[in-house]
Amino acid sequence: MTLLRGTVTGAPVREDGVLRHAQIGTLELESGHSLPEVEIAYETWGTLAADGSNAVLVEHALTGDTHVAAGRARPGATEAERRAAESGGWWEGLVGPGAAIDTDTYFVVCANIVGGCYGSTGPASPAPSSVDPERRPWGSRFPMVTIRDGVRAEAALADLLGIESWRLVIGGSMGGARALEWAVSCPDRVRACAVVAACAQSSAEQIAWGQAQNLAIRQDPDFRGGDYYDGSHPVAGLGLARRIAHITYRSAAELHHRFGRTPQGDEGVIGTHTAERGRYQVESYLDHQASKLAGRFDANAYLAVNEALMSHDVARGRGTLEEALSVASCEWLVAAVDSDRLYHPHESDVLAAALPGSVRRHTLTSPSGHDGFLIESPQLGKLLVETVLREA
Amino acid sequence: MTLLRGTVTGAPVREDGVLRHAQIGTLELESGHSLPEVEIAYETWGTLAADGSNAVLVEHALTGDTHVAAGRARPGATEAERRAAESGGWWEGLVGPGAAIDTDTYFVVCANIVGGCYGSTGPASPAPSSVDPERRPWGSRFPMVTIRDGVRAEAALADLLGIESWRLVIGGSMGGARALEWAVSCPDRVRACAVVAACAQSSAEQIAWGQAQNLAIRQDPDFRGGDYYDGSHPVAGLGLARRIAHITYRSAAELHHRFGRTPQGDEGVIGTHTAERGRYQVESYLDHQASKLAGRFDANAYLAVNEALMSHDVARGRGTLEEALSVASCEWLVAAVDSDRLYHPHESDVLAAALPGSVRRHTLTSPSGHDGFLIESPQLGKLLVETVLREA
Repeated sequence: MTLLRGTVTGAPVREDGVLRHAQIGTLELESGHSLPEVEIAYETWGTLAADGSNAVLVEHALTGDTHVAAGRARPGATEAERRAAESGGWWEGLVGPGAAIDTDTYFVVCANIVGGCYGSTGPASPAPSSVDPERRPWGSRFPMVTIRDGVRAEAALADLLGIESWRLVIGGSMGGARALEWAVSCPDRVRACAVVAACAQSSAEQIAWGQAQNLAIRQDPDFRGGDYYDGSHPVAGLGLARRIAHITYRSAAELHHRFGRTPQGDEGVIGTHTAERGRYQVESYLDHQASKLAGRFDANAYLAVNEALMSHDVARGRGTLEEALSVASCEWLVAAVDSDRLYHPHESDVLAAALPGSVRRHTLTSPSGHDGFLIESPQLGKLLVETVLREA
Repeated sequence: MTLLRGTVTGAPVREDGVLRHAQIGTLELESGHSLPEVEIAYETWGTLAADGSNAVLVEHALTGDTHVAAGRARPGATEAERRAAESGGWWEGLVGPGAAIDTDTYFVVCANIVGGCYGSTGPASPAPSSVDPERRPWGSRFPMVTIRDGVRAEAALADLLGIESWRLVIGGSMGGARALEWAVSCPDRVRACAVVAACAQSSAEQIAWGQAQNLAIRQDPDFRGGDYYDGSHPVAGLGLARRIAHITYRSAAELHHRFGRTPQGDEGVIGTHTAERGRYQVESYLDHQASKLAGRFDANAYLAVNEALMSHDVARGRGTLEEALSVASCEWLVAAVDSDRLYHPHESDVLAAALPGSVRRHTLTSPSGHDGFLIESPQLGKLLVETVLREA
């Protein structure tokens, strides 16, 4: 592990859930290339113990951000800063004072993945002047980053924060891939690892869906090879990518029970021409999901993190899966969502069976499919305090 | 049932597996509109009995054609005609001399669905001069057709062929939807009905995947609202639609066992930029499926038949599902593929339970998912001769 020199800017860490930025310098990439002047955005909750023993890293999923849970801004913060800090997070209830990941006990960190668009360096970031004197966004020039590259960037952040090892690294979906990669890339820095609704190696199925999503973006005429920042963004392509992904995130049974074949409002689904017919409720729902994502996410960042996820293979260059995992020395929680059809529970079985020692695979019960890892946070909290976060 | 006046043109029916065309006149549509000068393409195998009792209708699936099985052209046919007739069909082994649907016994008919692109009137067909004096292709002007409209067109074809009732109507996937609709739309014309890997009403899940496929086509800049026949066709969009559909047609386990995470040839999957990286085998496989479909199918026809399938609801306007099905008086074979994740076996249970009388749901065992209805034709043949085609 090369320690990267860098600096942390922003307010002191006593605030909770406030976006900060760390400069980690040049990131050497798995491809052999490098990404200069990398900034990692992160939020923290709680206080780091003097002996640094209470740090927990929460890894977000594909289009997730750093705001895991509500927090509070410093006295004297602007209204906007206060509102941002206090707004609810994506794992609300799992992280906070008195929660399973208790911020009165733990110092919780969540970093935006490199390549993303929630504050860390990504394709929409201005390229450094060494790359582009005009500092236009990276766009098509942004290099391929892998899950492993992301972990290397976060290790540099941990160095800057003075965290030698994590009490726990936890994530669901792509966050689970990141957590697993941490435990294998930096085995001496991870004491417990929770891999939720994730797998050891992205499957043929996951790669197939990833390809369809990426093509949806790349085939949008507004994508223009990735250099669209001076014009219209490929919102239709990004929206279609999200629709494809979102269907895989939910269960067929949930879609059936919520929507069935019901038309949206008084829209007539049998029309003179198909282009003019009314929509089914499930189409309206997916339109809404597409529009929400396109309004909050950058298309190039979607490609970058989706490609990182497709590249996920904790065993790449490390022998068999068992050999790759044998270096890890942490405690494990491996949990699957029973109705997940994107990260099949079977894939959690494969991971648990390949881990060193005797690791049981746990189950989150949910009707919702893959998204159950977010929705069923109370179940997950209970599992955590019974396993990797139980009192010694 | 209104009998439509029309004519059958082409050679006499003694040839097997040769494309013919029937003019069925104006088709009144469920939307209240109509489609003028409709032509239905079809093939036949075997000889219609004098009492008309041995006719079997095979209904094709979404992108299927009329060539169910190899046949033979008339003496003196051109080399191209001979080759077309003798080429293998998509249910080869199920239909033919000595097969379960024995063409020495039965007179087998397969018609291209209206809206398709294998000879029946569809969006790529020249519009009649009453609609367009220049007779340009229908394109965006082609009206919405439903599964029910398709059955009405086929009933007109049956009239022209002198078939009062079918010994059996059989289909898988969309073909199953068409078969089921036949039994309910024309209960006195169907003596047995086999619904394979299909359902009574397209589900929220199926509609959701349908929407994604349709958007992939509509968002291709070459689609130009459907009026692309004088320029480039939307092959990229149609290819993406096919990728999405194809993934749903196979099982995750099959993709895993066939492809895993293996790179295609010596292509390197970790690249400097994602746009230039090498492909995984499963991506190459889907590229191939996309390219094959885009080379043989019309994008507007894909929209037309996909919309027909999304509209599939045998109970629309007919009360509850049980009430809708209560008019049918035929024998039933309801079969699901055990690994099907698009037409879940549960949906076949729902159909079987709602049919009049006591109908058991049968299972085709396959590792391949939905496409098992095509692949496992020997199992299906055995089921047919044990059930709806058993000797009286």
